[in-house]
Amino acid sequence: MQRRSPPALRCPLEALETPLLVIDAAALERNLDRMARFVRRSGAALRPHAKSHKCPAIGMQQVALGAAGLCCQTVREAEAMVEAGIGDVLVTNQVVSAGKIERLARLARSARVGVCVDDAQNIADLGAAGVRESSTLEVLVEIDVGMNRCGVSPGAAAVELARQIANTPGLKFGGLQAYHGPAQHIHDPHERAGAAQRVIELARATRALLLASGLDCPTITGAGTGTFASEAASGVYTEIQPGTYAFMDADYAQNRTAPGTPHADFEQSLFVLTTVISHVSPATAVVDAGLKAIGIDKGMPRVADLEGARYVRASDEHGVLDLTSCPRPVKTGDKLKLIPGNCDPTVNLYDGYVVARDERVEALWPIVARGPGN
Amino acid sequence: MQRRSPPALRCPLEALETPLLVIDAAALERNLDRMARFVRRSGAALRPHAKSHKCPAIGMQQVALGAAGLCCQTVREAEAMVEAGIGDVLVTNQVVSAGKIERLARLARSARVGVCVDDAQNIADLGAAGVRESSTLEVLVEIDVGMNRCGVSPGAAAVELARQIANTPGLKFGGLQAYHGPAQHIHDPHERAGAAQRVIELARATRALLLASGLDCPTITGAGTGTFASEAASGVYTEIQPGTYAFMDADYAQNRTAPGTPHADFEQSLFVLTTVISHVSPATAVVDAGLKAIGIDKGMPRVADLEGARYVRASDEHGVLDLTSCPRPVKTGDKLKLIPGNCDPTVNLYDGYVVARDERVEALWPIVARGPGN
Repeated sequence: MQRRSPPALRCPLEALETPLLVIDAAALERNLDRMARFVRRSGAALRPHAKSHKCPAIGMQQVALGAAGLCCQTVREAEAMVEAGIGDVLVTNQVVSAGKIERLARLARSARVGVCVDDAQNIADLGAAGVRESSTLEVLVEIDVGMNRCGVSPGAAAVELARQIANTPGLKFGGLQAYHGPAQHIHDPHERAGAAQRVIELARATRALLLASGLDCPTITGAGTGTFASEAASGVYTEIQPGTYAFMDADYAQNRTAPGTPHADFEQSLFVLTTVISHVSPATAVVDAGLKAIGIDKGMPRVADLEGARYVRASDEHGVLDLTSCPRPVKTGDKLKLIPGNCDPTVNLYDGYVVARDERVEALWPIVARGPGN
Repeated sequence: MQRRSPPALRCPLEALETPLLVIDAAALERNLDRMARFVRRSGAALRPHAKSHKCPAIGMQQVALGAAGLCCQTVREAEAMVEAGIGDVLVTNQVVSAGKIERLARLARSARVGVCVDDAQNIADLGAAGVRESSTLEVLVEIDVGMNRCGVSPGAAAVELARQIANTPGLKFGGLQAYHGPAQHIHDPHERAGAAQRVIELARATRALLLASGLDCPTITGAGTGTFASEAASGVYTEIQPGTYAFMDADYAQNRTAPGTPHADFEQSLFVLTTVISHVSPATAVVDAGLKAIGIDKGMPRVADLEGARYVRASDEHGVLDLTSCPRPVKTGDKLKLIPGNCDPTVNLYDGYVVARDERVEALWPIVARGPGN
């Protein structure tokens, strides 16, 4: 195979082949620091979500800055993070197949491993694996706080599963997972805070029922980059799970926040570097980043460094830019930076990050846990 | 790293961890055979598009069944196919950066390599690389036949670039690339054939101008799975470039065709195997295939093997099924097969195919050219 060499260290970004996934190292560091400072002043611990970056190099920085551990969304991600040295992972998802349950119970021999449930048979299966592997899985009951995805109803149904976990050898009842994804993306700050408050009240009421039933509830975990300040201030949540704050994206950038609130401070640190490959009409240009290089499920990317240019259409390997409001001339071969609409699925398209400082390559970080997670 | 073993040969599909990308081997073979038989009776050669499968194992089968060579969309794909033994590749795209041009000219030392252009400076750069590498690149002028993406206008602008190519050392003028992507996806067969006919007339007129200018036009290439029968019958196109016919997808399945026409015969051969991970309400179930496991840019996937179930919502790692019209009971842990809305971006999410026959693993084919193509 004619292997390509990796980009050379200190090489200028504009000399690299595209499409590439680029991290602005200084902006990432500022984002990680800001969240660490926020959490130190808050009543909650930080457990950042590794589903956003899928990268042990970033997860280790988050833990070094004080995070209690990491969230993962798949067993594969959890394995990758523990292998890299992370000692505490929570799979914020249901793990139901026999092979994955076995891998999870094995992983719990070398790290603190948590997982979420919403099903009685699943609890029995997890317990049997814990016993077989001589490990203890920490199991949280996921409650559906309005997302209509996984989770049992808040209240009695959750207490019933919690009691079953507490009575199952091989398992330890960890508490509640209570996360509302769509609430993160409500652009109006008052509506967003209101949605977070409704979630908090459901978690609070379920915790009260657990305590009244004689069950301890050590952890209540949830929240994302849109609402974490509400949950952290709630006196109910013991942990917050933001992921996107490290990178940000065009969708989260539309969340309006009052000055001085923590979300307003996060900067875009993740970019897709792309090249203009065709520019026949003055009104349009075509770049080499399409569906195979950038996620468009939450809207088209924004062009970071070409004022007035709009990315209007994506096909598999092409993106079409509308230049009618762009005063600067563009030529074939120009490199541009795109801000993804949604950072998570974009990261999942790449095998590694190019980490840049002052527009030069500083490091190359493999996206070890890339892939659909089988 | 706790490496996962690859799926065992002859293992039943339902015992595998998901999400997985599965090929029904018998259906793929029938699709490849049908296209090969069609092409033998037609006036055009077949140059299937490797951007769909990104897999030398499939590309080799297509060539073994009579294809003249393969189309690729990136230099990376072309390198992977030539390395695997394919002797003739056409990059149906613009290659403009210095590094990629150099790689392409180097590749042309070990295979027949074609590339498309729409820019005079690009022609000069390609020629200089051909001279430096002592190779000859075959260069086709891309004409914009209504897609408003890459390509110069049909007619005089194309002739001017063709003449420049013919006069540039290191290059050989190959002919015209004339492809209309959206036309492939027009569901009504008469409208679709009409769109193809307009494309054919633009190519025909440009060829006439080239010949009148004393230039030869050995190749006119284009067409996809939606319209290839029109181009093959045109007497204008010398090559057709379908890719999706090997796999099919939920979008192409909506193309209506008259019985007896070739498109009607292709079968779905590509599936995403997924697991039900949560089923709390009888009306819904959640599967483990979301945005990181299946492309939704051309619509939601279809559930292949659970009548009445509808995949209604995708988040990063979850898919929500509406079961209100599904008579069969579903339980947590059930495996289901999804038909992707768009096969190309779905394939790009996986490192390999699980090839199955009679619902058991027959082979594992790496998706060697996966990735955004830098």
